[in-house]
Amino acid sequence: MTVNHGGDIYSREIEYDFSANINPLGMPESVKSALINGIEKFERYPDINCTELKNAVAVHENISPEKIVFGNGAADLIDRIVQFLKPRKALITAPTFSEYERALTSVGCEVEYFYTDEKNDFEITDSILDSIYGKDIIFICNPNNPTGNLIDNNVFQKIKDISRKKKIHLVIDECFMDFVDKSCLYRSKARDKNIIILKAFTKIYAMAGLRLGYMLCGDEMIVRGVENTGQCWSVSVPAQLAGAAALKESGYIEKTLQIIKTEREYLTAELKKFGFKVYPSEANFILFKTDIQLDKMLLKKKTAIRNCENYVNLESGYFRTAVRNHDENTLLISEIQEVMKNG
Amino acid sequence: MTVNHGGDIYSREIEYDFSANINPLGMPESVKSALINGIEKFERYPDINCTELKNAVAVHENISPEKIVFGNGAADLIDRIVQFLKPRKALITAPTFSEYERALTSVGCEVEYFYTDEKNDFEITDSILDSIYGKDIIFICNPNNPTGNLIDNNVFQKIKDISRKKKIHLVIDECFMDFVDKSCLYRSKARDKNIIILKAFTKIYAMAGLRLGYMLCGDEMIVRGVENTGQCWSVSVPAQLAGAAALKESGYIEKTLQIIKTEREYLTAELKKFGFKVYPSEANFILFKTDIQLDKMLLKKKTAIRNCENYVNLESGYFRTAVRNHDENTLLISEIQEVMKNG
Repeated sequence: MTVNHGGDIYSREIEYDFSANINPLGMPESVKSALINGIEKFERYPDINCTELKNAVAVHENISPEKIVFGNGAADLIDRIVQFLKPRKALITAPTFSEYERALTSVGCEVEYFYTDEKNDFEITDSILDSIYGKDIIFICNPNNPTGNLIDNNVFQKIKDISRKKKIHLVIDECFMDFVDKSCLYRSKARDKNIIILKAFTKIYAMAGLRLGYMLCGDEMIVRGVENTGQCWSVSVPAQLAGAAALKESGYIEKTLQIIKTEREYLTAELKKFGFKVYPSEANFILFKTDIQLDKMLLKKKTAIRNCENYVNLESGYFRTAVRNHDENTLLISEIQEVMKNG
Repeated sequence: MTVNHGGDIYSREIEYDFSANINPLGMPESVKSALINGIEKFERYPDINCTELKNAVAVHENISPEKIVFGNGAADLIDRIVQFLKPRKALITAPTFSEYERALTSVGCEVEYFYTDEKNDFEITDSILDSIYGKDIIFICNPNNPTGNLIDNNVFQKIKDISRKKKIHLVIDECFMDFVDKSCLYRSKARDKNIIILKAFTKIYAMAGLRLGYMLCGDEMIVRGVENTGQCWSVSVPAQLAGAAALKESGYIEKTLQIIKTEREYLTAELKKFGFKVYPSEANFILFKTDIQLDKMLLKKKTAIRNCENYVNLESGYFRTAVRNHDENTLLISEIQEVMKNG
């Protein structure tokens, strides 16, 4: 299988991985304990209704359990959503997470891109609005991967208004929203029936290997439909146990927000010192541009960053780095210093 | 979500579960150790190529790694196979595992049944051959779920011959084949390019909650196609670790075959004593028929068997029980005795 994403620490020798955007605090100890204590339960088929986890997420999201569907990671839900809705025409922004396009084209959907402008830091502007008409589905990644920017509130409101009026399904991928500082946080609640919100435990609770994501939707028909698309056992027992345990954590998210904010500022400032163009990010990763083949040079030091040239609307020279803890970030910066000095 | 399968120990209070066909020996201790020792690896994205596991399965199956695709349980692969092949006309037998039909109809495929005859112990006979022509895909579950019977070798050869000549995809689900005593075992190797073989760790290594299955296929185009259908991270880190550890077990399969053979004979004899019609099984479960509502009566004792009335070509009165260890099987028999005496 071709590697189209970050996080490939298997086909190359990697000691420090900045290519996947995972919480640098690591998986909470309470989650590990829940897994070890629950290991006997791995023998049996999973609860197809994810009952305990669903109730915990309902409280966490302040939403009715009937509006939640779980998946084998958010990526699983992207596929099941398009398989159920079977859209004919879709709008996605570029650059963005490539799984939307892959899933859409796999069901024969025609995909149109809204190309965001580099000069404008890849922000989504009002000019997207004309492209919405005639579509069956729109995907908005917020904050966006790989740019890390949040969509402007005014533009977003207009997108929501048009989508609601024209009954266009609007999928809002908030998988990185939990890394966004509360002061600039605005969540989309699943009020409008045409809106589907995607969330993941994968990144924020550092459990990417366990695969756990969920969607929120106010339309019962869509909830039931996506739930019944694909096998009924998609969410494993360890994923369900880990998710329920993670939501009992207190202070972990606050600590995460603090470290991400401080370290993002640190990394941004340091990357700029190299003369790289660094794009403003609200998330736990940073997009930047440089003419040098930085990923290949760092790979010699067993350090991975994400080469973003395979994103639609990006090209050679764009890289994304995760915001890790201070020791790791310092190491990254010193490694960049070295490779720039010695090549 | 509606429960269409056995193994629901969550929406009801169950102490003894005979409704899911899982190895009564339980998950090997070495697998549990591998999971606990590997828990730090759960943080990172899984290896999308399942490299270590694939190499282990290649040795185990004596097949090239290029012919193997892993999935989030075999059920995941059923969906991905039909999503990739997009068949228009399918033939499945009845009764059989319901996931084939669900997956096929989800891609708009027309499904024709070959109804096996109760009088003939639901065996697949030569009369299936006429139904093969004009189909794009056939699913054969061997040994069959819920009947437990193996397809007759002569009939099977004819099905394979016609499928190969007519370029019809033949999916052979061997998820329960590892429970079949070696003396009557015949495996289908992925020699013919039109053949796809499904296997699972789920049942034989008692890791249903971890979700791990695989397919073998001699056609590289199909292997690549199914591999690239759906998300690339479908197989979790714990599933990959557990699978690789399980294959290092020695003696576990032999011990399993022994207990299943002995206990299946015991259960069959005991069930017959109640006057139930018991169908011959080569697998780790037994189909039987009785007029009494046995599942509801046993549920009062917190014991679950599988009511098979929702299988196509079965009706009220058919039940399936897993073959468990002797203590559990003895308990089941004594509970049946009690409920039959007292109602």
